[in-house]
Amino acid sequence: MSSRVAVGVLGATGTVGQQFVRLLAGHPWFEATWLAGSERSEGKTYADAANWKLATPMPDAAAARVVQRPVPGNGPKLVFSALDANVAGDLEKAFADAGHIVVSNARNYRMDPLVPLLIPEINPDHLELLEQQKSAYGWKGGIVTNSNCSTMFLAMALAPLRALGLTTCNVVTLQAVSGAGYPGVPSLDILGNVVPFIGGEEEKLEMEPQKILGRLAGDHVEPHPVIISAHTTRVPVIDGHSEMISVGFASSVTAADIRAAFDAFSGLPQEIGLPFAPPRPLVYLEAENRPQPRLDVERENGMAVFLGRLRPCPVLQHKFVALGHNTVRGAAGAALLNAELMQAQGLL
Amino acid sequence: MSSRVAVGVLGATGTVGQQFVRLLAGHPWFEATWLAGSERSEGKTYADAANWKLATPMPDAAAARVVQRPVPGNGPKLVFSALDANVAGDLEKAFADAGHIVVSNARNYRMDPLVPLLIPEINPDHLELLEQQKSAYGWKGGIVTNSNCSTMFLAMALAPLRALGLTTCNVVTLQAVSGAGYPGVPSLDILGNVVPFIGGEEEKLEMEPQKILGRLAGDHVEPHPVIISAHTTRVPVIDGHSEMISVGFASSVTAADIRAAFDAFSGLPQEIGLPFAPPRPLVYLEAENRPQPRLDVERENGMAVFLGRLRPCPVLQHKFVALGHNTVRGAAGAALLNAELMQAQGLL
Amino acid sequence: MSSRVAVGVLGATGTVGQQFVRLLAGHPWFEATWLAGSERSEGKTYADAANWKLATPMPDAAAARVVQRPVPGNGPKLVFSALDANVAGDLEKAFADAGHIVVSNARNYRMDPLVPLLIPEINPDHLELLEQQKSAYGWKGGIVTNSNCSTMFLAMALAPLRALGLTTCNVVTLQAVSGAGYPGVPSLDILGNVVPFIGGEEEKLEMEPQKILGRLAGDHVEPHPVIISAHTTRVPVIDGHSEMISVGFASSVTAADIRAAFDAFSGLPQEIGLPFAPPRPLVYLEAENRPQPRLDVERENGMAVFLGRLRPCPVLQHKFVALGHNTVRGAAGAALLNAELMQAQGLL
Amino acid sequence: MSSRVAVGVLGATGTVGQQFVRLLAGHPWFEATWLAGSERSEGKTYADAANWKLATPMPDAAAARVVQRPVPGNGPKLVFSALDANVAGDLEKAFADAGHIVVSNARNYRMDPLVPLLIPEINPDHLELLEQQKSAYGWKGGIVTNSNCSTMFLAMALAPLRALGLTTCNVVTLQAVSGAGYPGVPSLDILGNVVPFIGGEEEKLEMEPQKILGRLAGDHVEPHPVIISAHTTRVPVIDGHSEMISVGFASSVTAADIRAAFDAFSGLPQEIGLPFAPPRPLVYLEAENRPQPRLDVERENGMAVFLGRLRPCPVLQHKFVALGHNTVRGAAGAALLNAELMQAQGLL
Repeated sequence: MSSRVAVGVLGATGTVGQQFVRLLAGHPWFEATWLAGSERSEGKTYADAANWKLATPMPDAAAARVVQRPVPGNGPKLVFSALDANVAGDLEKAFADAGHIVVSNARNYRMDPLVPLLIPEINPDHLELLEQQKSAYGWKGGIVTNSNCSTMFLAMALAPLRALGLTTCNVVTLQAVSGAGYPGVPSLDILGNVVPFIGGEEEKLEMEPQKILGRLAGDHVEPHPVIISAHTTRVPVIDGHSEMISVGFASSVTAADIRAAFDAFSGLPQEIGLPFAPPRPLVYLEAENRPQPRLDVERENGMAVFLGRLRPCPVLQHKFVALGHNTVRGAAGAALLNAELMQAQGLL
Repeated sequence: MSSRVAVGVLGATGTVGQQFVRLLAGHPWFEATWLAGSERSEGKTYADAANWKLATPMPDAAAARVVQRPVPGNGPKLVFSALDANVAGDLEKAFADAGHIVVSNARNYRMDPLVPLLIPEINPDHLELLEQQKSAYGWKGGIVTNSNCSTMFLAMALAPLRALGLTTCNVVTLQAVSGAGYPGVPSLDILGNVVPFIGGEEEKLEMEPQKILGRLAGDHVEPHPVIISAHTTRVPVIDGHSEMISVGFASSVTAADIRAAFDAFSGLPQEIGLPFAPPRPLVYLEAENRPQPRLDVERENGMAVFLGRLRPCPVLQHKFVALGHNTVRGAAGAALLNAELMQAQGLL
Repeated sequence: MSSRVAVGVLGATGTVGQQFVRLLAGHPWFEATWLAGSERSEGKTYADAANWKLATPMPDAAAARVVQRPVPGNGPKLVFSALDANVAGDLEKAFADAGHIVVSNARNYRMDPLVPLLIPEINPDHLELLEQQKSAYGWKGGIVTNSNCSTMFLAMALAPLRALGLTTCNVVTLQAVSGAGYPGVPSLDILGNVVPFIGGEEEKLEMEPQKILGRLAGDHVEPHPVIISAHTTRVPVIDGHSEMISVGFASSVTAADIRAAFDAFSGLPQEIGLPFAPPRPLVYLEAENRPQPRLDVERENGMAVFLGRLRPCPVLQHKFVALGHNTVRGAAGAALLNAELMQAQGLL
Repeated sequence: MSSRVAVGVLGATGTVGQQFVRLLAGHPWFEATWLAGSERSEGKTYADAANWKLATPMPDAAAARVVQRPVPGNGPKLVFSALDANVAGDLEKAFADAGHIVVSNARNYRMDPLVPLLIPEINPDHLELLEQQKSAYGWKGGIVTNSNCSTMFLAMALAPLRALGLTTCNVVTLQAVSGAGYPGVPSLDILGNVVPFIGGEEEKLEMEPQKILGRLAGDHVEPHPVIISAHTTRVPVIDGHSEMISVGFASSVTAADIRAAFDAFSGLPQEIGLPFAPPRPLVYLEAENRPQPRLDVERENGMAVFLGRLRPCPVLQHKFVALGHNTVRGAAGAALLNAELMQAQGLL
């Protein structure tokens, strides 16, 4: 008999859902005992319902499970949400209302003032908002969200720069196709091509970091004042978002200051040893042409953010490159780390 | 008997050389009668010497020509240079010294204060430097250069913004592999990948536009004071450099001002109808996800710069996308337009 | 006033429909005056209705046309069909019944014994089946089909080998994504990947050539007895199907015999000079690593089939490579050539 | 103090050498204590000398080693050879002469009648040729080779079919770029393209399996009489060669017979539990569109061959798909398994 905590996955058959299933397969604390899907999948085994698109085989335990209807009240207390935004709004609320803790990857509640937009290395104290949620919304459970995938790598890189007086940021992303799900980006649009637009993405990248990097002030989060300009593009890469980042500061900062801040950055997950916490959240690569998706995205189990090419920016002050695994640290892995923190803090 | 002006090509067998050969094939004014190559190619027919990598067949006339040794004094007065930078320094000087007009795509003399870094739509008057060259260097001929490929699209987009008080620019490029020549970028480095570094490219992109956009003041060019920060990356695209550009101004400028400036931009090549001049140098595309390399790079014979997605930038003032054909308008086509301008002005 | 014959396009907004619109734009005989689409497109301009995916701009005349509902009896006598197979069955029949000549790219009627599966270089006499159609089906008009895209290149290559005693053929295809339409193949399935299966494709490739290469015997076509084994795969290429072909013969045949047969191959379209007829239907490339999609597929306006690497096959007798443009000669261009032949023969 | 057997790697800095270094890093029996490279690398640390191109980080132990000059007599008794064919001929012989056991991935000695072309699941008894080598060539050591990468997957698939009366085979490969080393295939040649030719590859694929599948008859190998026709192509895939295979038999064989032969196939490595032996050498995938490089090539640590789509072939008798990891089971992993077998049999 397993002593692991039973957890569920909403939207288990999609691409993010598949990452949840993969990452939970060997998890030391959690066991995915309940996989929920759309009507089309309900009643089928997961093996039959999911069009598995990961390069590692489907875990045997998951393959044999029967996909459930996502009925609030059914399933374990902790449910991960890999739902599409068009259904996540109603369904996540219903699950929270019914007493579930919903650890969500969807965008719907991220900017809700009472919902933590959680990155455990940066703002673990934002979990205190869960109490506000209960009283304000009358939910028996609650909702905790992780950020947009591109936001994750940017916020992680900017977090240690707050103490240096960070004021402005320009970011251009080169994003992988797995971020768009399946079927997602048609091959005719992206083979040998660049699409200089991703719907709704720039808005997220300009707003979410302010909340994530913000300070909990009693019952709300005071956004960090960094001003961000984002330009997001799609490139023919399977996994791994690259970001070209320039940063400005209130006063003059040296490259050594920034580098030291990157290297020293660590957080609660590292301190208390959460299973999915990367040893170092930010890994700086010295080679002049790194990080690169093909060579670096799978390192550290896809949970670290890789940095490189720190150098002066003639317009702002400094510039550098960031890279992260969009469906791991940028999605399912982020939610898992969130849930691990909550479990470690007795919130589940 | 042809009434076209005989011209030569230095470095005719490489990838840029091949574009020269292709573009000259149907040229109304010029005829490529002299193709020069390295020792390895000398004496072979062009068909045997060139490893043709373009998607249109090698022109028959070129195929049959015997590749010549690049001896200064041999060949026509006008020679296009598609030489690699490691040999262009000595060889172009020797040709200029021997009385040739060298219209070069190489980087070696671009920043020489007496060498025009010419974009006919922007700075046709810089050709006056040719006189300075003769007296200062004692050359019987001269050297005229075109810009780096990425610089071309940036400089074209910035040129009309000078009048609006342009002060700063942040640019991130997503560059095609054809810009690196052949064999160039190994497929292991770029298939499904992004390389966030191109050696020497950012420096060119930060400096060349200042000279191009500068003002001829008597015997020298006063650089334009725009401050540029560049981040250059390589992506798995065959032809077409995409650029994500943010711009700042001395005072507040509206999007309508910028758009009007783009639409109104035209120059001497358009006015006097040079054969390779695109009807409109800047073509603004309205769709929210354009320009794209696969869909737009071959339009206007690869001689226009395509713009799109003009919108506010929270950090500077405005941002937009630019795209151009790196081996046509960004290389061989640029040199051809330069030569056309010189021919029209009686400088050949 | 145009003296060109008015023609219509069914399914004009899809990827094959777009090729029809592009190819018809400059056509000397035909003018696309009627573009029909699904309910979703009806009433919009073509510019608004079509998600244009070709690398050349949408023709201005087409852009301004209002997309029509596909009502039989409406529209010109000659209609090209770029319909999906799931609607082509009923709709093409209804149009034929109402007096239209339907020149179709859909698969539905290809194997109908009374419908010509026409390749003008190979079996122009199969058009005589149109008379059988009328009497047997009571249609006032008729249906003429072109082959599957992969079949086209195979059938063209095999046609001249019939006279040498062709008996068997093994073919493996490497097919471009444009053959699957839009959105078609998801990028997650094909970036850096090979999919060794295309639904229904192998069956077509094994059957259609027998009909195409067959002999008209009074009121029906006697299939050619060549036995074909096909293995079809999808590769990350935009346009251009490559085929690795081995052929066996009733008795021993030399490579010189085959090469001579390829070089001599020509047909009625070449003889009577149909506008879209390639000067040589089969173009043999001598280089040991050709034909290649990127370098060769756009040659001859995409209407020829490119061959190469003829050499002995230890199992059958000879092997070689074929390449063709799947959405031009393999689809819309094939239908146009069919219509040109019919126009030239007074059948329209 | 390590109790593992010290081993060396010749050509350690190239792409196959890197795979040796990666695979040896955690090996239970062998320890790579001696890494040899070209003059250019000699004296540098491996971290400095190798342009690491694998998606997993360079092992720390290897990174710190100083690259050695490949002097016969120096280094451990067992040396793996990842040498290029242009130097492997002389160098491997010199090492064998000096007493080393050379387990080579190079092609030079594969067809030497006295050198085992070893696949432990198929022909472990061919190792007896080592004795013939010594007496015939006077070597104190010896040379053992693994097959060409494409041959590996074909030979593994054909091995169980010998007992069913296999007579003929047609194979078309779609090969990954990593098989060509680094820099290897230029991106301009392969992005969005197919190259229908790989120099020398078809000859290997037609000959090597006959030797591998052959019978040891006293002092030589009697080649298996299967007649193979190969067509090899390069596709834009990083790792994983796909093969479309048709097979003929002396008499009629059922699909069930073939499937049973695939499923039952196992060999000495599985029996004695060699560390790198895949549990099942042939893994048949039931889905109609598998195996695929992106989804399957990393399974079973890249040491199994994946099969699928068994179905009738109208020309021969049956056809199916095979896939293998070209730089693991097709190169370094194959050599490791060879060495493991020799170690287990006391030959080292």
